[in-house]
Amino acid sequence: MDIYRAEEALTCTSRISGLQQQGLRILRDNKGKRHVAVDPVGARSGNWVFTASGSAARHATGNYQVLTDLTICGIIDFWEAETN
Amino acid sequence: MDIYRAEEALTCTSRISGLQQQGLRILRDNKGKRHVAVDPVGARSGNWVFTASGSAARHATGNYQVLTDLTICGIIDFWEAETN
Amino acid sequence: MDIYRAEEALTCTSRISGLQQQGLRILRDNKGKRHVAVDPVGARSGNWVFTASGSAARHATGNYQVLTDLTICGIIDFWEAETN
Amino acid sequence: MDIYRAEEALTCTSRISGLQQQGLRILRDNKGKRHVAVDPVGARSGNWVFTASGSAARHATGNYQVLTDLTICGIIDFWEAETN
Amino acid sequence: MDIYRAEEALTCTSRISGLQQQGLRILRDNKGKRHVAVDPVGARSGNWVFTASGSAARHATGNYQVLTDLTICGIIDFWEAETN
Repeated sequence: MDIYRAEEALTCTSRISGLQQQGLRILRDNKGKRHVAVDPVGARSGNWVFTASGSAARHATGNYQVLTDLTICGIIDFWEAETN
Repeated sequence: MDIYRAEEALTCTSRISGLQQQGLRILRDNKGKRHVAVDPVGARSGNWVFTASGSAARHATGNYQVLTDLTICGIIDFWEAETN
Repeated sequence: MDIYRAEEALTCTSRISGLQQQGLRILRDNKGKRHVAVDPVGARSGNWVFTASGSAARHATGNYQVLTDLTICGIIDFWEAETN
Repeated sequence: MDIYRAEEALTCTSRISGLQQQGLRILRDNKGKRHVAVDPVGARSGNWVFTASGSAARHATGNYQVLTDLTICGIIDFWEAETN
Repeated sequence: MDIYRAEEALTCTSRISGLQQQGLRILRDNKGKRHVAVDPVGARSGNWVFTASGSAARHATGNYQVLTDLTICGIIDFWEAETN
């Protein structure tokens, strides 16, 4: 599972129905690249989180029908950013 | 889920039947590399989109039989390109 | 789905039975790295092709029992090499 | 399967229920990037371990319901760090 | 499917039962990074091999219950190392 920093929510009017009403959040990896994840945990901007990818991401939403390949699994209590 | 900029449609006369009549679109990632995605959303060249990969990509077409590993899930309303 | 340039066929006498009689072809990505794909389309050396990976690769051979994680899905009609 | 060096356990109060009571451990790859894995083996900080990813990671916990995409599969007896 | 050079067998006393009695071998990719694969083919140190990853890796062992995400599928007859 990978570690990201949560950023703002993603606004996306036109999207497939398979994502249902799930909230989407931008995550930034340790190289600065941004990704989109479903968030069943309720992360806030600035939280450090870890995620499940692949088919585990669908299970992690609590509803296997939700079409995602990246889902936030938890908020890390203490974290120090990587410098590489 | 990853973020790409949509480019032109892909012309591909010789292809496997498993892709059915799905439209294909070129997407460019933040390093400039180009990928091919099935597009059930109707993105236009220049749109910023996010995608599902892996087995979620097949579900995301609305037909699990479509043989893709990358499908556009939504068009992002506002997006600022990454500079890294 | 990713884009590769097809190169020569792969000769491989000792291989697992799960690949059956499928032809194998070397593909080169935009960084020059070589990969091995099952080819149900009949690509020739020099063609630009796109591929499905993961579980979609097995479906794409037309026989889910074929043990591959990369299968050629189509030959691109017109393509200009990336320079990055 | 990939090779990592185990680091400290991960403290994570707010997490999805699908991870159950599984212990989580930080792993560091050969480029210094940190990942989060479920640990059914009992690795200690400093051990070199190898992991299964993807759907194999769920099976590797001994309970397919555990929502992980990275699970420690074994502790390597002798290992010399890579220098690249 | 990816191409690796086989190196020595991996000694690993403490490992999950899901790997059963499968032999493990170290593989080195074209950037020098080492990986761990199940080897049903019987590769020797110095052989060039190609592998299946993901769920195909489990099928490739001949026993879907074996918990691996990387399995050697064949030994390549002739191969010239990449220089990139």
